[in-house]
Amino acid sequence: MTAATRDPLAPRLRWFGWGPPETPSVELPDAAEPLLARLGVPDVHTPPVALEDVRLPASRLDPAPLAAVVGADHVRDDRLTRVTHAAGRSYLDLLALRAGDAGSAPDAVVYPADAGEVAAVLAVCAERGIDVVPFGGGTSVVGGVTPPADRERPVVALDLARLDRLLSVDPVSLTATAEAGILGPELERRLGEHGLTLGHHPQSFEFSTLGGWVATRSAGQASTGYGAIADAVVALRCATPAGELVTRDVPATAAGPDLRELLIGSEGALGVITAVTLRVRPVPAERRYEAWTFPSFADGVGALRALEQAGVAPDVTRLSDEAEVALNRVVAAHTAAVEGDGVAAILGWEGDPERVAARHETAAAIARDHGGRPVPGDGGDQWAASRYAAPYLRDVLLDRGVLVETLETAAPWSRLAEVHTAVAGALDRALRAAGTPPLVLCHVSHVYPTGASLYFTVLAAQVRGGEADQWRAAKGAALDAMLAHGATITHHHAVGRDHAPWLSGEIGPLGVASLQALKQRLDPAGVMNPGVLGLR
Amino acid sequence: MTAATRDPLAPRLRWFGWGPPETPSVELPDAAEPLLARLGVPDVHTPPVALEDVRLPASRLDPAPLAAVVGADHVRDDRLTRVTHAAGRSYLDLLALRAGDAGSAPDAVVYPADAGEVAAVLAVCAERGIDVVPFGGGTSVVGGVTPPADRERPVVALDLARLDRLLSVDPVSLTATAEAGILGPELERRLGEHGLTLGHHPQSFEFSTLGGWVATRSAGQASTGYGAIADAVVALRCATPAGELVTRDVPATAAGPDLRELLIGSEGALGVITAVTLRVRPVPAERRYEAWTFPSFADGVGALRALEQAGVAPDVTRLSDEAEVALNRVVAAHTAAVEGDGVAAILGWEGDPERVAARHETAAAIARDHGGRPVPGDGGDQWAASRYAAPYLRDVLLDRGVLVETLETAAPWSRLAEVHTAVAGALDRALRAAGTPPLVLCHVSHVYPTGASLYFTVLAAQVRGGEADQWRAAKGAALDAMLAHGATITHHHAVGRDHAPWLSGEIGPLGVASLQALKQRLDPAGVMNPGVLGLR
Repeated sequence: MTAATRDPLAPRLRWFGWGPPETPSVELPDAAEPLLARLGVPDVHTPPVALEDVRLPASRLDPAPLAAVVGADHVRDDRLTRVTHAAGRSYLDLLALRAGDAGSAPDAVVYPADAGEVAAVLAVCAERGIDVVPFGGGTSVVGGVTPPADRERPVVALDLARLDRLLSVDPVSLTATAEAGILGPELERRLGEHGLTLGHHPQSFEFSTLGGWVATRSAGQASTGYGAIADAVVALRCATPAGELVTRDVPATAAGPDLRELLIGSEGALGVITAVTLRVRPVPAERRYEAWTFPSFADGVGALRALEQAGVAPDVTRLSDEAEVALNRVVAAHTAAVEGDGVAAILGWEGDPERVAARHETAAAIARDHGGRPVPGDGGDQWAASRYAAPYLRDVLLDRGVLVETLETAAPWSRLAEVHTAVAGALDRALRAAGTPPLVLCHVSHVYPTGASLYFTVLAAQVRGGEADQWRAAKGAALDAMLAHGATITHHHAVGRDHAPWLSGEIGPLGVASLQALKQRLDPAGVMNPGVLGLR
Repeated sequence: MTAATRDPLAPRLRWFGWGPPETPSVELPDAAEPLLARLGVPDVHTPPVALEDVRLPASRLDPAPLAAVVGADHVRDDRLTRVTHAAGRSYLDLLALRAGDAGSAPDAVVYPADAGEVAAVLAVCAERGIDVVPFGGGTSVVGGVTPPADRERPVVALDLARLDRLLSVDPVSLTATAEAGILGPELERRLGEHGLTLGHHPQSFEFSTLGGWVATRSAGQASTGYGAIADAVVALRCATPAGELVTRDVPATAAGPDLRELLIGSEGALGVITAVTLRVRPVPAERRYEAWTFPSFADGVGALRALEQAGVAPDVTRLSDEAEVALNRVVAAHTAAVEGDGVAAILGWEGDPERVAARHETAAAIARDHGGRPVPGDGGDQWAASRYAAPYLRDVLLDRGVLVETLETAAPWSRLAEVHTAVAGALDRALRAAGTPPLVLCHVSHVYPTGASLYFTVLAAQVRGGEADQWRAAKGAALDAMLAHGATITHHHAVGRDHAPWLSGEIGPLGVASLQALKQRLDPAGVMNPGVLGLR
């Protein structure tokens, strides 16, 4: 099939993993073998089952009422479409898919053309009791797009692929309005035609959508400078079964509780975000990314805190702990490798060259005061070139029987070391108890005046036959530790279904009840993404 | 009464206006007389009635159940206490009080000692059907603390005066937790003992409280640098009739919709904010405030936009329009007067001297590019010295029969000139139609990357016997114009009861219904500040 005739609704990700279906999987670097041996991973390959062997329940849906809204070609229930909408991209999702379990697949996938059709689809579903799972890029790692398997009634994935337009640009106010289904690269390309950028680059950037970012409170790799997605959202439109919620395109308001902040992070439980007005900026004339080294993770954290509290943190501010740096010496991954002792940081500045130079000078002085020194070479550019690489590597690790997953949190500066130790310790203990001592790596990737994020990567040998339980126990221990030590259960991955049992520990039972009351008003039939945020 | 024996619960504001009761009212400057003559204001004085002549309905409340919670001395229904809790400090409030109308007074005022007593008071009120008006400093200008006059059942003001402690400081994370009833100066004094500042300075600073700021989405005069209060709130506790909502003290989270942003701006309709964890900063070593002049308001707006979009706006960024500058030439008010043509701005930087110097240099270059030039002399310091002065002057203007009120909005940069013209025009037309051509002044006081606030001051002769209707018509026309031209109905004064009829135009009927659903869950008896935000 040529590019000209390629089905625009064809899956963007291979059905069992990461990357476009038409490209080959990446290879595992040879340098990784000693690491796998150390984890006790045997040299056995477990490829995914063939698509035709995936277990897929028969569709229970009569497509006619939805086809009447969006057209027959835009309600699909073929095998590939259903399987590619059966799950997100968490470790647990990929375990199930690779093993041929698509029991969670929606009965069909519906592709509305615009906000009006989204509203009409919701009306049909609410009336007929069809559950709706809004689907952007499908890259959730918390069960946000995995249809609930325990529901009696039919379920559709509402795929926003056709809502992919940049609707307007206000070059004076530096705002732009785009439809929710637009993908990261296409949004940046269209903004770039106006000399503008959003600057939001999560690791999923290539395959995730604006609406997905907003619905999950995403944060990009340059969030220290550009802010998280919540900081960029000026206004939005959200279709709910009860009607449309539209927040006002104004820079600030004191008109009551902030409904925009109620829809950001709502994960499809209240409605479908259809369009977002964003704060944008001129494309920076210069991007200066550097690798730095610090004597220890604690020194590096001290430097990041000093930089941010002085208001001069770089736009990209990432710091790996000792374990992550040690691994990166073996397998170059998502931060710079450094020689000798010490930990590594990526510091990046963007903007016009004069301001970049001035900001660099101020920040470098503070970093040096904390024992930092720049690493000669192009470590910063290397990081930037591989910034989206990690998920590609996961498929081949899964093939080799490696437990590989990430999780993230945030905590006040005063508790960051405690949380780092507690979460890493909980993961280590849980996986040792399973007989699979892990590697637990960590980096800081987003800093704030009052605290910072911690992003953990876990690697271990899989417990064959008990892979999912092995990880659930470890993840649960990590979440318990976060709550016990004053951290949040998620910094930028959201809650989905996987974290839902811990949400009450985060916002209290009355907080959850408040969200449920809101859902009841906006979605009285309870069809919107049931189960995420623990809401029904 | 000496300071040592002064009743700590005595009113802080004179019952009919601004300033401490024990200090004399300010005098009207002689220079104002020609201005009043121009407005057609006669040389007639209308002082407030005597306190003992204020019409006050008999209290309908049995104090015993509340006294059982807070102690008999902390449930008060004496005349002065009730009158000082009968209204906020809007023009309409002051008109009514000065005329001796305290028909809105609560039946009693209750002063709980802490969050536990607040919860217990709410339980008593919910059970007995007693309406509760949370009361901080009582400086609302939108009817936020004016008990609803149309209710059948008794109403108490819940005064937070005793919740006035700084609870904790985290010097590493730069956060501090304080009780909601603490007044601005006391909060800054206590933070100052730790070398810290919040930097939140609304015009009401001397008499308003932390909880009031949060409940109304307040913005201070240095909000461009320090952020509005919503930017400073890290976490909060809110007592509701259904239980306590507590948000987590973390720098960021993706754990669902932001409940903190739901309680900020909730105006007591959902519960009572009892404690707030704030982002604080080191007390700046230097404060450098300067007066600048620009050829026109449009030039000045262009400069402010360029400064903010380049990320180098001063911490205090205020710009008066031609009408405000003309008035300030006559009566020095809340911005600098300049000689000759042009408009005036106050630009202020705070921080360590080196950073202030660097930021000043960058900003001054941009300001000069837009035709700006610094005004020699101490105009900046003069502004800072009189930053809280305007409300004091209002009492004497009311005494002289002047309609005097302020209102504020915000809009995208691309619509700012249009909104400025439309709102000023609406006020002018409405008051001309009443036979009282006004002076309408405006300044920008808070700037954002995507837009700015506009703060209007209106002066006119009162229509004797129809004072309230005269202003209601003009205010309504102004709010209609804001909505019609893409602006918000309030930038930092909140909604209260006065703006409630326009809230649906701001957030839509479904937005209001969403808030009502939330209120129903948290306050099923509907006792919490009924009427604000249009909620019952």
